[in-house]
Amino acid sequence: MNYKSLIAATVLAALPVAGIAQDADTTPLNAEIGFIFTTFMFLVAGFLVFWMAAGFTMLEAGLVRQKNTTKQLMKNMGLFSFAALAYYIVGYNLMYPGDGWSIDGILGAFAPAAMEPVGLAGAEPDLTYASVGSDFFFQLMFCAATASIVSGALAERIKLWPFLFFVIILTGIIYPIQASWKWGGGFLDQAGFLDFAGSTVVHSVGGWAALAGALILGPRIGKYKDGKVIPMLGSNLPLATLGTFILWLGWFGFNGGSQLYMDTAGNVADISRIFANTNTAAAGGAITAMILSQLLYKKPDLTMVLNGALAGLVSITAEPLTPSLGMATLIGAVGGVIVVFAVPMLDRLKIDDVVGAIPVHLFAGIWGTLAVVLTNPDASLWTQIYSIVVVGVFVFAVSAILWSILKATTGIRVDEEAEINGLDTTELGMEAYPEFSTT
Amino acid sequence: MNYKSLIAATVLAALPVAGIAQDADTTPLNAEIGFIFTTFMFLVAGFLVFWMAAGFTMLEAGLVRQKNTTKQLMKNMGLFSFAALAYYIVGYNLMYPGDGWSIDGILGAFAPAAMEPVGLAGAEPDLTYASVGSDFFFQLMFCAATASIVSGALAERIKLWPFLFFVIILTGIIYPIQASWKWGGGFLDQAGFLDFAGSTVVHSVGGWAALAGALILGPRIGKYKDGKVIPMLGSNLPLATLGTFILWLGWFGFNGGSQLYMDTAGNVADISRIFANTNTAAAGGAITAMILSQLLYKKPDLTMVLNGALAGLVSITAEPLTPSLGMATLIGAVGGVIVVFAVPMLDRLKIDDVVGAIPVHLFAGIWGTLAVVLTNPDASLWTQIYSIVVVGVFVFAVSAILWSILKATTGIRVDEEAEINGLDTTELGMEAYPEFSTT
Amino acid sequence: MNYKSLIAATVLAALPVAGIAQDADTTPLNAEIGFIFTTFMFLVAGFLVFWMAAGFTMLEAGLVRQKNTTKQLMKNMGLFSFAALAYYIVGYNLMYPGDGWSIDGILGAFAPAAMEPVGLAGAEPDLTYASVGSDFFFQLMFCAATASIVSGALAERIKLWPFLFFVIILTGIIYPIQASWKWGGGFLDQAGFLDFAGSTVVHSVGGWAALAGALILGPRIGKYKDGKVIPMLGSNLPLATLGTFILWLGWFGFNGGSQLYMDTAGNVADISRIFANTNTAAAGGAITAMILSQLLYKKPDLTMVLNGALAGLVSITAEPLTPSLGMATLIGAVGGVIVVFAVPMLDRLKIDDVVGAIPVHLFAGIWGTLAVVLTNPDASLWTQIYSIVVVGVFVFAVSAILWSILKATTGIRVDEEAEINGLDTTELGMEAYPEFSTT
Repeated sequence: MNYKSLIAATVLAALPVAGIAQDADTTPLNAEIGFIFTTFMFLVAGFLVFWMAAGFTMLEAGLVRQKNTTKQLMKNMGLFSFAALAYYIVGYNLMYPGDGWSIDGILGAFAPAAMEPVGLAGAEPDLTYASVGSDFFFQLMFCAATASIVSGALAERIKLWPFLFFVIILTGIIYPIQASWKWGGGFLDQAGFLDFAGSTVVHSVGGWAALAGALILGPRIGKYKDGKVIPMLGSNLPLATLGTFILWLGWFGFNGGSQLYMDTAGNVADISRIFANTNTAAAGGAITAMILSQLLYKKPDLTMVLNGALAGLVSITAEPLTPSLGMATLIGAVGGVIVVFAVPMLDRLKIDDVVGAIPVHLFAGIWGTLAVVLTNPDASLWTQIYSIVVVGVFVFAVSAILWSILKATTGIRVDEEAEINGLDTTELGMEAYPEFSTT
Repeated sequence: MNYKSLIAATVLAALPVAGIAQDADTTPLNAEIGFIFTTFMFLVAGFLVFWMAAGFTMLEAGLVRQKNTTKQLMKNMGLFSFAALAYYIVGYNLMYPGDGWSIDGILGAFAPAAMEPVGLAGAEPDLTYASVGSDFFFQLMFCAATASIVSGALAERIKLWPFLFFVIILTGIIYPIQASWKWGGGFLDQAGFLDFAGSTVVHSVGGWAALAGALILGPRIGKYKDGKVIPMLGSNLPLATLGTFILWLGWFGFNGGSQLYMDTAGNVADISRIFANTNTAAAGGAITAMILSQLLYKKPDLTMVLNGALAGLVSITAEPLTPSLGMATLIGAVGGVIVVFAVPMLDRLKIDDVVGAIPVHLFAGIWGTLAVVLTNPDASLWTQIYSIVVVGVFVFAVSAILWSILKATTGIRVDEEAEINGLDTTELGMEAYPEFSTT
Repeated sequence: MNYKSLIAATVLAALPVAGIAQDADTTPLNAEIGFIFTTFMFLVAGFLVFWMAAGFTMLEAGLVRQKNTTKQLMKNMGLFSFAALAYYIVGYNLMYPGDGWSIDGILGAFAPAAMEPVGLAGAEPDLTYASVGSDFFFQLMFCAATASIVSGALAERIKLWPFLFFVIILTGIIYPIQASWKWGGGFLDQAGFLDFAGSTVVHSVGGWAALAGALILGPRIGKYKDGKVIPMLGSNLPLATLGTFILWLGWFGFNGGSQLYMDTAGNVADISRIFANTNTAAAGGAITAMILSQLLYKKPDLTMVLNGALAGLVSITAEPLTPSLGMATLIGAVGGVIVVFAVPMLDRLKIDDVVGAIPVHLFAGIWGTLAVVLTNPDASLWTQIYSIVVVGVFVFAVSAILWSILKATTGIRVDEEAEINGLDTTELGMEAYPEFSTT
């Protein structure tokens, strides 16, 4: 490095540059170059969001008890794989119902995803955006993240196959339908709802589905006893911390890629803003959770700090672009506060959320969606609230119905003995750490 | 995100765009811009493939028993480092014997790799491709992956230094020679052999070398007893799962980077296809292994699911570009089937492959190489079979000779007491988890 | 892949190309395209360097004893978050004191970081470099790495909050001031000091701060007893190995991004050189440590190999561009030698560095800074030495004063009982592996 960075960093050149983008939609200098930039950006952002699947898996495997670890690993491998299938076969086109409710539109909405031909031969592509393949890859990872959120909350007691069936419906139908309302140009988008990278469309959706599941599934045996909350400690905190770092890393792709274009100086500068704001919001959430847990409990609580960072990330997701660094830090910090107070609150309500997914993704997701109005003048508080409610009612209701049907038919909960002995030996016949003796 | 993605995703613009690539070899609009795109793509893909070294290490460390974990970590750190050296000093130029078998060509083939001068000063580079440095970086990671495959199969009983000596020959000589037959423009390439990213050139090569080693090394003590297969469980399944996710992530670089060009809209769209196909093949393999192990054993088997995902990835590696998403899923799914049946089959043959590397990399590698004919009209089934056999005979024979020489001289197997007590304390004097008491 | 790579790899085209960069400062063909390339490169390199925070965390969590693991996780989550805040509020502008010591300059130097407006609207940006947001994001990660180095050395005995207070001063004040001397265009830069990516500016700075802390904090209870060094083994070596791989991966961004420009063929070719050299230096360090520990102790030592790889990386950091692959390997190899001899040397001096951070980052950092003169004709040995001394005296003295003040006021060391029982239960009330019984 040398001091040249100083020039760019402190002095903005006096001369205006011809052709410089003033907003994200300006046509780039050359369409094909812009197409390559944006498409490659989607691929990089997409693999980062893919990596979040590993992050959720490690976080959750670290926060469950030893006897349920293999099950949690299996659930997460399974949910990602089934989500990939469901989103390809149904979800992707359902999310972009371009031709509306004509016959063609309905047929198209239920067709599997298809990419451009090899080498774009004969494709006559629209070079103003990105390749369909890269868009599909990127969007799929968002859909899968929604399912990962549900997995954590319902850990240590849910049956494998009914859970995976729920995931298929969630990722193939529920998520795409509500996502189409905003990202498919539907009625929430037309009403002016703003949700840049999905505090509502992804995170609160996962949270609502998890909440419905947690209520219908009930708490773990022994969790709430004689009016007391019995702590059930995570068995591997380095793993949980690794998961948090993975998620933090993946979030740069999650929020940054949601700029959707990298074909102009303005767009890439915006992606830079988003990266920096995403990072500082996570830091704000972690710091707040650390200080608050120190003040409240006299000892800083690592799981609160991890969830504080994640809540900071969820909070900034609805609007990572317009805030200043200071504002982004504050928005994230409020996420940290939410976690510290909401985790014990859920326990008081006897809603058993094993990893804190509901505070992090639902509550901080709602906060983040509301916080858009603080920095984006185009946002309307009432539209934000209206959209939160519409999405929430839809996802919660459909999820509750689906969980109830599953409960009444296949059952969704392992039997008592299995739960007490651990799902790994009873459901899977395979321990995560077979050689380590446990206390 | 907004609904604009809808337009690109569902409606391809009606007007043809001047200058749009129709195939991967079209000259880009500006050579230097294309050079930057392709070179940077190699660096990104290359660091993803580097990351696979960590993936193999975690997968293998999770699947060995606790007492052999440090050894497995050491082997993997060592093999990557020695591979880096051997490929630099001998392998890279041996793989691209440009000037054939003239004196100059032979001297050149055995010269160490050299990159362009700093800033390309005086280099007169060919701007139609990428920098030599980026190509070297990318190709090195493929070579090292081959060695990682061998490491897993021979775990828990092989001596460290003879193994590393084998790695040096494998990565400096064996791998580059056979890779030159295809990727160096040699006789298999001229015969029309198709292997996009190396189902044969990388994965089956690692698999053949591992098979030769497993046969000559023999099974672990106590593995096959009185006609029964004694399970020897992996000691840390979260680690194995993390390794699988790392490999899955790295594979986007492995297959995507093998497009070799990102200088046109057509090429970047192809890379997008490859990313999406690679992902769906892994999902297909994981799902199949999960369902099959449920049906066969009444309980889904996590290690089968992990290996199923990896087999799906290996299966799509020979042709990740031409399949549709559906076909890619099916090709990967067959990989999952192969794993579920081949793992017990190897045990019946008393071939002790600790992590399942032979089913995943050799058997699924052969399947993937054959599967090219399903979607690529340029492929000939007989040429594919011929090439699989040629590469297999060469690598298996040379590896077997080398393992035999090592066995007869230095020995390749630790002594019985060391194997029973664990390689960590006996060979390395260092336990992986010194404080955790074991059952 | 196909044999075309052969052409680029072995034959450099005969015709010179118009407009090809001869050095890193040439104006690109189109300023906006260059701006997008460089900015995106900073974002990718920046997220890789971010990932190093996870690498340090895993490395350190794996090398401490089980009873202090949660504390180490907490310290690392905390230090990154507080570093992000301190560098944003004070450090970034302090590092680039553009306007010198005028009133405006001083006010500017203490202003929080600010990015360009959304979409660059009205920003009149200098398109010859990159966006301020991306530069801030990238530089922040370097600053945070410095703090991570300190964390490892002082593990298992330091109090949480005084440590975090030190981190705030280190990342907000100490690091930026000395970094401004080189990277802010200050007096060391003007004297001709060369430190490409920070062997001195980052690594030795972390090392000096750690050394001052280790001296003032004192060794762990029981570490040095009756003239003997009592081994205190790392509790989770797979985690430490994972951390090393993460750091190795992140280092491609660390060194590669420090090229600062990716707007020409010459610059991207240079970044390629840097990637390849960084990798081979790490391999050189690992191999040397493996062979040396085999020769000296009859058994290769995994923690030496891990630290050898890291020392190789630190060694090449001051000049990853100009060396050939062979020279880079040797420079890294010397790093490996340093680690093998310096770790026991520190123990003889009763300086207790839990993870080997001082040998890796300080000693190899000094070596790397001196080694610049081997390959870069612009380097002066005396200027390199002078700069090492100036930075060392400043950072060591200020750190020692700060540690002493903290020791005299809040105290920096946990009480004896807490240290013996482990910081996790006493300071945090939370065990990292609560279910695994320990020996």
